Amino acid sequence: MLFSKVAHHLGYDLTGDDLELNSMNELALASHGELTFAVGKKYSSDLSSSGSNAFLISSDLVEYLPKNASYIICENVSLSMAYATKLFAPKLIDFKSSHAEVGDESYIDTMAKVENGAKIGSHVTIMSGAYVGSNVTIKDNTTIYPNVTIYRDCSIGANCIIHSGTVIGADGFGFSHTATGEHVKIYQNGNVVIEDDVEIGANCAIDRAVFNSTIIKRGTKLDNFIHIAHNCEIGENSIFVAQTGIGGSTKLGRNCVVSGQSAFSDHLDIAPFSTFTARSGVTKSIKESGGTYSGYPLMEHREWRRLQSKIAKLNS
Amino acid sequence: MLFSKVAHHLGYDLTGDDLELNSMNELALASHGELTFAVGKKYSSDLSSSGSNAFLISSDLVEYLPKNASYIICENVSLSMAYATKLFAPKLIDFKSSHAEVGDESYIDTMAKVENGAKIGSHVTIMSGAYVGSNVTIKDNTTIYPNVTIYRDCSIGANCIIHSGTVIGADGFGFSHTATGEHVKIYQNGNVVIEDDVEIGANCAIDRAVFNSTIIKRGTKLDNFIHIAHNCEIGENSIFVAQTGIGGSTKLGRNCVVSGQSAFSDHLDIAPFSTFTARSGVTKSIKESGGTYSGYPLMEHREWRRLQSKIAKLNS
Amino acid sequence: MLFSKVAHHLGYDLTGDDLELNSMNELALASHGELTFAVGKKYSSDLSSSGSNAFLISSDLVEYLPKNASYIICENVSLSMAYATKLFAPKLIDFKSSHAEVGDESYIDTMAKVENGAKIGSHVTIMSGAYVGSNVTIKDNTTIYPNVTIYRDCSIGANCIIHSGTVIGADGFGFSHTATGEHVKIYQNGNVVIEDDVEIGANCAIDRAVFNSTIIKRGTKLDNFIHIAHNCEIGENSIFVAQTGIGGSTKLGRNCVVSGQSAFSDHLDIAPFSTFTARSGVTKSIKESGGTYSGYPLMEHREWRRLQSKIAKLNS
Repeated sequence: MLFSKVAHHLGYDLTGDDLELNSMNELALASHGELTFAVGKKYSSDLSSSGSNAFLISSDLVEYLPKNASYIICENVSLSMAYATKLFAPKLIDFKSSHAEVGDESYIDTMAKVENGAKIGSHVTIMSGAYVGSNVTIKDNTTIYPNVTIYRDCSIGANCIIHSGTVIGADGFGFSHTATGEHVKIYQNGNVVIEDDVEIGANCAIDRAVFNSTIIKRGTKLDNFIHIAHNCEIGENSIFVAQTGIGGSTKLGRNCVVSGQSAFSDHLDIAPFSTFTARSGVTKSIKESGGTYSGYPLMEHREWRRLQSKIAKLNS
Repeated sequence: MLFSKVAHHLGYDLTGDDLELNSMNELALASHGELTFAVGKKYSSDLSSSGSNAFLISSDLVEYLPKNASYIICENVSLSMAYATKLFAPKLIDFKSSHAEVGDESYIDTMAKVENGAKIGSHVTIMSGAYVGSNVTIKDNTTIYPNVTIYRDCSIGANCIIHSGTVIGADGFGFSHTATGEHVKIYQNGNVVIEDDVEIGANCAIDRAVFNSTIIKRGTKLDNFIHIAHNCEIGENSIFVAQTGIGGSTKLGRNCVVSGQSAFSDHLDIAPFSTFTARSGVTKSIKESGGTYSGYPLMEHREWRRLQSKIAKLNS
Repeated sequence: MLFSKVAHHLGYDLTGDDLELNSMNELALASHGELTFAVGKKYSSDLSSSGSNAFLISSDLVEYLPKNASYIICENVSLSMAYATKLFAPKLIDFKSSHAEVGDESYIDTMAKVENGAKIGSHVTIMSGAYVGSNVTIKDNTTIYPNVTIYRDCSIGANCIIHSGTVIGADGFGFSHTATGEHVKIYQNGNVVIEDDVEIGANCAIDRAVFNSTIIKRGTKLDNFIHIAHNCEIGENSIFVAQTGIGGSTKLGRNCVVSGQSAFSDHLDIAPFSTFTARSGVTKSIKESGGTYSGYPLMEHREWRRLQSKIAKLNS
């Protein structure tokens, strides 16, 4: 899409050369041909060193743009960014791709739906009522139970098991807000990548990234009702017990163990080999690996136990 | 249905004229032709001023009935009411309605099910495995992702997005109880109304009203795993983060923001522009708009922060 | 399957006679022809009195085996047990059974899937998108709403109502762990038994047992988003409010009432007529019936109320 068309859609003028844009991306990751955006002086150095050449910015950031950049100055960058994502959203279904490819010895129920462009490995089972969207990849030996939904462009590894009712690749929960309190959808144009040997329980929801990928790494096991928000990265061989939720862009290292009904805020970085007891409420990053935590606010498990006995004594 | 038939079904005598009844409703809202019910003196004045003319009541309330009322005196009104709801429950599927109407440029996948009597607007997308029940209305430009279920008689506005696994219009959780501890279903004969510009995440559940409607107003956005019980009313442009639940008949004003894993009791009234941080547990109505709250029991957010630091000191 | 084949699969030698094995079971319940396992001296007496004759054990337990036992000494019994369960896992779909039997006056939508070997009673309704696995039994007058999934070998009683998105019989969450932190699936070869008059809300998940059955007894009612883990047993006429989770093998007596967002640990035994207020976190068994509890850590409700007022005073 031409940058000038984006400018027209947003109702602003384009400064600099017109460019062909393939997609959007966040400032730190965007490269040539990817539209990106920045608001606020704290991004001035990221802006200067950006690999992109196409920007939506606030007027105070013009001086920090890299050389030869094309840009649009927006009154409300966040809102303009949201409107722009719609232009880059793929169609819900890609009817133009060729028919799905299916490997040897795979079983696809006649009442499952596999859209065009999907690539299904060998010895895969896709049961009745499952939905496999356009251009989805599913590798060998994976089982998709009935009524699973996999949105377009997601990828599932080998030897995975995905239980019924689970939804992979629904839109992340992202909106920009108008001055009058309406919420403008930020189209979620990324995908979900599930690596090999992952098992996902019943009725989970793993949201697609706004840009790039939400990733569940090799060997991780999710119980039922796990919520993984957009752009999370879950390390290898982790364990999530039922009804736990992970906020957007949070990253957990390998072999974390998270007990039931726990929750993590957005944008955290959790060291590997961390353990969280039931109903942990995690609002800060954890740098040291190997700890065990409890409570909300979160603290070391030992401390939490001590605190509970102190609290109990208030009643005596 | 004739009131005499209801009386026969309940095993009681009808006093007064026999009447044709169209439906049931709660006392405050019932009009002529709607069977209603009351138990306990606190309803005496509501009873006297009721717009209905057909009642299930306890014997002590007879004197408060409006003139010319027909009524049944029940030993256990709550239980008789539950039994009566079954008589007014529509069939699961309305085979007698005419074929669904579908507007221009709409796409309904061949593996989606749209029952008779449904009215689908233009530019609507209904993907594989979605279920659209009898007499459901879906307005223009709305997207229904795969494996969404919309029970009969519900209505979905324009420009809505409903993600996979979400269930709209399942029965509210309502039972009357026998002396021996069995639970008798109160049939949920209302519906769900979703207004325009609403987005609902994956694997949500919005229950139909027992009578009348559960309502999600214009512009509200729900993340994944949101539970909205029967007869709730959610104001315009509100935001609900994942794994939050709202108890029956609770009403929230416009532009509320509810963070993840929060919960609201039944029958609350929440002022507009209220904000609730993660895991808020709301058990009382909120009258003043614009506040920020936390904790369970709930308190002002500032107070909660102060309290957490006091609690932490117990351990020192 | 021959015990010698299991030994070969595990890479160990079989001691004693070769045996035909039908299934696996836990030590306390296993009978002749059922492979079982034990690790640690605390199981020595259970081992001696076991009804089984086929064992996976650690070397220190050989002397406690019953007479004429056949056995395999394993370095890591838990891990070998997990590998063995895979050998006893039934196929995902039993194509060889005869066509499903369906009773009089039942309605099965053409877009529902009923696998071979299923037995459907009379006056049953199975709506579009529902999945009824191989050898599932559904008794008279039961309603299965759209997009419900019932995994193979489960059984549903009469007069049940199962709402959309609910998954019955997905695998329990069970793994053994390697020294390098991988998780090896314990195949869940049991089933789920739902007795008569049970209603299950939208988007619930009731996991199949690892061996034997997860059981929901007669008359129990579940709201939306209820998680019941493998091998639970839920007593008659119980009530579970939305977003509650029950850990593996926990048993609740009859007429328990569990309010929303509550959670129970694994392996608890809860007395009948127990009541739990919202967000109860239950980590210990309850022996006396009729109590009311709150909080996490759990305490008597009265005590919890008193404690909350004491905690509130910390802020004054």
